[in-house]
Amino acid sequence: MPELRYNRLSNTWVIISKERAKRPHDYPIEWRKEVGDPSKCPFEPGKENLTPPEVYAIREPGTKPDTPGWKIRVIPNKFPALKPDEPFFRESEDIHDRMGGFGYHEVIIDTPDHFRHIHNFTVSEIQIMFHTYRERMRQLYQNKHIYYIQIFKNHGKEAGKSLYHSHSQLVALPRIPRRIDTQIAQCRSYYKEKERCLLCDEIRYELKQQVRIVHDNNRFTVYTPFASAFPFEMKVIPKFHSDDFTKITDEDLTELAEALFVAIRKLSKLFEDPPFNMILHTSPPMREIPWDPNYFYNIKKFFHWHIEILPRMAIHAGFELGTEFFINPTPPEEAARYLREKR
Amino acid sequence: MPELRYNRLSNTWVIISKERAKRPHDYPIEWRKEVGDPSKCPFEPGKENLTPPEVYAIREPGTKPDTPGWKIRVIPNKFPALKPDEPFFRESEDIHDRMGGFGYHEVIIDTPDHFRHIHNFTVSEIQIMFHTYRERMRQLYQNKHIYYIQIFKNHGKEAGKSLYHSHSQLVALPRIPRRIDTQIAQCRSYYKEKERCLLCDEIRYELKQQVRIVHDNNRFTVYTPFASAFPFEMKVIPKFHSDDFTKITDEDLTELAEALFVAIRKLSKLFEDPPFNMILHTSPPMREIPWDPNYFYNIKKFFHWHIEILPRMAIHAGFELGTEFFINPTPPEEAARYLREKR
Repeated sequence: MPELRYNRLSNTWVIISKERAKRPHDYPIEWRKEVGDPSKCPFEPGKENLTPPEVYAIREPGTKPDTPGWKIRVIPNKFPALKPDEPFFRESEDIHDRMGGFGYHEVIIDTPDHFRHIHNFTVSEIQIMFHTYRERMRQLYQNKHIYYIQIFKNHGKEAGKSLYHSHSQLVALPRIPRRIDTQIAQCRSYYKEKERCLLCDEIRYELKQQVRIVHDNNRFTVYTPFASAFPFEMKVIPKFHSDDFTKITDEDLTELAEALFVAIRKLSKLFEDPPFNMILHTSPPMREIPWDPNYFYNIKKFFHWHIEILPRMAIHAGFELGTEFFINPTPPEEAARYLREKR
Repeated sequence: MPELRYNRLSNTWVIISKERAKRPHDYPIEWRKEVGDPSKCPFEPGKENLTPPEVYAIREPGTKPDTPGWKIRVIPNKFPALKPDEPFFRESEDIHDRMGGFGYHEVIIDTPDHFRHIHNFTVSEIQIMFHTYRERMRQLYQNKHIYYIQIFKNHGKEAGKSLYHSHSQLVALPRIPRRIDTQIAQCRSYYKEKERCLLCDEIRYELKQQVRIVHDNNRFTVYTPFASAFPFEMKVIPKFHSDDFTKITDEDLTELAEALFVAIRKLSKLFEDPPFNMILHTSPPMREIPWDPNYFYNIKKFFHWHIEILPRMAIHAGFELGTEFFINPTPPEEAARYLREKR
C-alpha cells in the first residue's frame, strides 16, 4: 500500500512505495570498489607540493605548512567550481541573467592515511573533521560577499567521489542556494503559525514515538525522516535548539562525532560500506539581502541546523528529475529497525 | 572564468565552470553496457502472459490483445509506485502529513525488438512512441483525480534504467509535483510582467543568436539551454506557442519525431551512446485546486510544453543534493557546437 508523505522542510512530497518494499538484502551490494595507488595520490603526506598551498591544517607541533605532520589539511581545489579572484558582477544578455563566478572551493583532506575512510574513522577522527569544518566556515564567513557555505562529503564512487583518498569539500557561494532559501521560508512560515521551531517539534515527536530513532546520545539524535527521499536516509541533529553549526562548542563536537560515528557504522555494516553523501545544513550568516530587509529576522528562533546522510542505493532517474517527487522503496520505519539492530 | 547563470523556469542558478571546462573527449566513455537475455525478458513478443494485461497497443490488424503482433505496447507496471485502487485519503499523524498512494504507473514497451533502442530508432518509431504518449495521457486524464502525468524515458544503466528491453514510463499523480508547480509560477510571473510567454521569448532569442541551436525544423527547434544544469543537456520545443502536449496534431508529431531523432543521434554519436533521461513537461489538465481558484487562469497563454534530454555524464553529489545548485563543466555554447558538428 503506497502512500505519499510530505516533507515540510523542503516542501516536497515523497512516495513511500511499500508495494516495492525493499529489505536490506533486496539491494544489490555491488559498489564499485577502487583503491587508488598511493604513489600517485596528490593527497599523500610528502606530496604537499602537488596541491595548492594549504589554508588550514591541524599538525604535530613544530611541523611547517605544506610538509608532512598533519592530521587534517585544507587546500583550495585545484579545479575550482568558483574562484575568489573573480569579479562580483551581475549582468543580463537579452532575456538571460548571469553573475560572476565568485566564491571558494576547498578540499578538506580528512586523514593522511590513504586507506582510512569515514566508515572506519574513530570518534576522535570524526571530531577533528567537524572541528575543521567549523573553523574553516568561521574563517570564510568573514568575507562579506559569501552568503552560504555548503560542506559535504561524497563517500564511494556512486556518490560522486572522484579521488580515492578520503576528503570532504566546501563550496562558498555568493548567493543563498534555493534549497536553503526554501528551508528558511518553510521554517519561518511554520514558526509564524505556531511560534515553535519545525525541527524541534519533529525531534520531540520522533523521540516520543521511538519508531524512526536509530541512535540517541546526550546532545544529538539520529533518525530516519518520516518523508525520507532516499532509502535508509538519516538525519543527525542536535536535540537542543541551535540555528548555526559554526557556534557549536567543543564539548558538543564530541557528542556530534559520537552520533555520526554510530550512524555511519550501522549503515556501513548493513550494506557493506555503501556509497552515501553527507550534507550539512545550517543557517547562513546575516547579510544584506537587497530586496528583503527582514530575510534574517528571528532566524535564530526558527532554523535548526542538521546533517543529512543520503545513501545512494538507487539512481535518480527521469521521474525524480522531472517532478522533484522521490520514490523510496523502503519505509523509514523499517529502515530504522534494521539500522538499530546493527552495532 | 566560472559564472553563475539563472534558470528562470526552475528558479535555480547553475555554475558554468569554464575552469574545469570539459570537451567531449574529457568525459570517460565507460557506460555499463549490458545485453539482457531475450529468453528471460518479460517484454518479448510471445511472453505477454508474463506482464499485466495491456492497456493500449498499436498492433497488426487482426491480432488480439496480449498476443504478438504489436509495434508498441502499454502495460501497468508490475511493481507500481502508485496504484489506481488506493483510497484517495489525506490524514495527519501529529506533525506529519500523508495521503493515499493513488495513481497509475505504466510501462510503454517502445518496440518488440529486444535489441533496438531509442538511439537507433527510426523517425517513424519515435513518432509511434510519442503518438502513444499522447493517447495514453488523453485516456488517463479522463480520471478527474489525476492532476499530473509524468512521462519519461531512462536510457542506459547510469540513467536509472533497470530492464534492458527499451521502454518508457508513465506515472500519473494525485498532485501537481513541485517542479511543475514552480514552472507554472515562474511562467505566470513572467507573463504578468511582460504579457509574453517566457519560453517563446527564449526561443526567439536563441533562434536569433544561433549560438546554442543544435537543430531546427519547420515546427520544432533543439537547443542547449543557457543555464544547462547537465553537460550537453538539450531542450526540444515547439516553435509555435502551445501549452499542452496532448493537443499535438499528427502532422506535428512527425516534425517532433524528426527533431528528437536528430538530437539523440547527435548525442549518441558524440559519446558512443551515453546514458540520458528524456522528460516531457506539459501543462496539467484543468482541475479544481481547492486553495486557489485561479491556479489555471490563462495557463494556455503562458505555459509552453517541451522535452528535456539530460545526459548523465556525471553524478550529482553532495553539493547538488545539498543546494539544488548545479555545476556544469561544459558551457552550453560549446556543447551546441560539438553537437551541431555530428550528423
